[in-house]
Amino acid sequence: MTISKNKEKFITSLRLKKFRQKYNNFIVEGDKMVRELLVQSPEKVVALYALESWLAGTEDARRVSSDKCFSVSPAGLKRVSNLNTPNQVLAVAEIPEVEVDPQQVKHTLSLFLDGIQDPGNLGTILRIADWFGIHYVFLSPDCVDPYNPKVVQASMGALLRVHCVEASIGTLCEQHPGLPVYGAVMEGENVFTAELKGASGMIVIGSEGKGISPEAERYLSHRIAIPPAAHSRADSLNAAIATGILCAVFLARVR
Amino acid sequence: MTISKNKEKFITSLRLKKFRQKYNNFIVEGDKMVRELLVQSPEKVVALYALESWLAGTEDARRVSSDKCFSVSPAGLKRVSNLNTPNQVLAVAEIPEVEVDPQQVKHTLSLFLDGIQDPGNLGTILRIADWFGIHYVFLSPDCVDPYNPKVVQASMGALLRVHCVEASIGTLCEQHPGLPVYGAVMEGENVFTAELKGASGMIVIGSEGKGISPEAERYLSHRIAIPPAAHSRADSLNAAIATGILCAVFLARVR
Repeated sequence: MTISKNKEKFITSLRLKKFRQKYNNFIVEGDKMVRELLVQSPEKVVALYALESWLAGTEDARRVSSDKCFSVSPAGLKRVSNLNTPNQVLAVAEIPEVEVDPQQVKHTLSLFLDGIQDPGNLGTILRIADWFGIHYVFLSPDCVDPYNPKVVQASMGALLRVHCVEASIGTLCEQHPGLPVYGAVMEGENVFTAELKGASGMIVIGSEGKGISPEAERYLSHRIAIPPAAHSRADSLNAAIATGILCAVFLARVR
Repeated sequence: MTISKNKEKFITSLRLKKFRQKYNNFIVEGDKMVRELLVQSPEKVVALYALESWLAGTEDARRVSSDKCFSVSPAGLKRVSNLNTPNQVLAVAEIPEVEVDPQQVKHTLSLFLDGIQDPGNLGTILRIADWFGIHYVFLSPDCVDPYNPKVVQASMGALLRVHCVEASIGTLCEQHPGLPVYGAVMEGENVFTAELKGASGMIVIGSEGKGISPEAERYLSHRIAIPPAAHSRADSLNAAIATGILCAVFLARVR
């Protein structure tokens, strides 16, 4: 079967945030991630475009009704794929609606990403959140869209499990009064020796180039730092590395 | 001035490891990193190719003799640059020879990278090493070359400070008998609660896809793990993130 020109246009339009928002759909690609999608949220699958061999040989494909499954040629898949080397299957899925539970925000650790621009960094941060069992990742409106195809693939499935919510830090702090808000800043307290209030609150992660924005910095209740070695001449850590270290410090302490 | 065809060929040949090894030269690009090179190791600079405005306006350019400075046009720079958007200056530099001091290996923490393939990951790992003041980063022969232009740029200058040494783990362990060798493996001991022998020894970092190789695993004296959250369904952490967390755990403990 070939994908109609209209369908092709629809699928490739989802590369742009504008159309993802319009249709509330996004793209998941490749055998491993699509199978994860099928296992975790089959009800979110709008359509599967796959090689005949994949459809025939993949048990998990039976989790969606056959009228959502379309067999395509390698050339057809290549035309709609965002990957340099398309991997057997592409799914169109619904963007989930996330309801934020204030009790969960209060009693667990969340991340607030302040202007993260690089899709690879965001994907890596979502993997960290997934690894450490973080429920909510809040994203400032100027972050790269988590449903951007590059983020989806870099997250290696984490996007399907972690709850991404676009929010401004002002609104979050209003909705959750008294929430501890941690942020790494130059002159902050050494996070390795600081008294941390258990594993709840929100960690603000600054952007790659500029760190935490002046707007977000006003909301910090705890100013922390990952100190460099005494003789280090490095001037910054990558945002995802800082996230990994902070999550380890916060969450490993209470184990 | 224009760069001669021969010079152009020489500079672009340094994109390949074969020619970097042949000439023992590598490329550093962009205002910030070239200035770092000029401040830290002016004697390693073989030649500077820069826009006239950069040469005239950059005090640090005076650190090398004028017969090594070549003014080039934006088009000329673009022809030899490895960047999508060339940034004013490109330097050809000597690859430093690193002498490994056994006492330093014995008394400080080193990294051994076991088949790291992604230039971005290696650059990020070098930034982490730089941040935490790690002296030696050993690389297995199947790692991406640290003098690969993509690694150089991703390291944001860390490559100029951290000492990279290609080595096999077998030889290292022979040369440094009794050295604690740590590695994160599935069934390892929780690194957050493990008794660690201070901040010395060598941490083995496995490759992105395959983790620690069977060959390297035989040399581990301490099998550790970064445990995921109890309910996590993530199946791996990025190699650079694991490096950041392990360095923080090892080096923050002894502060």
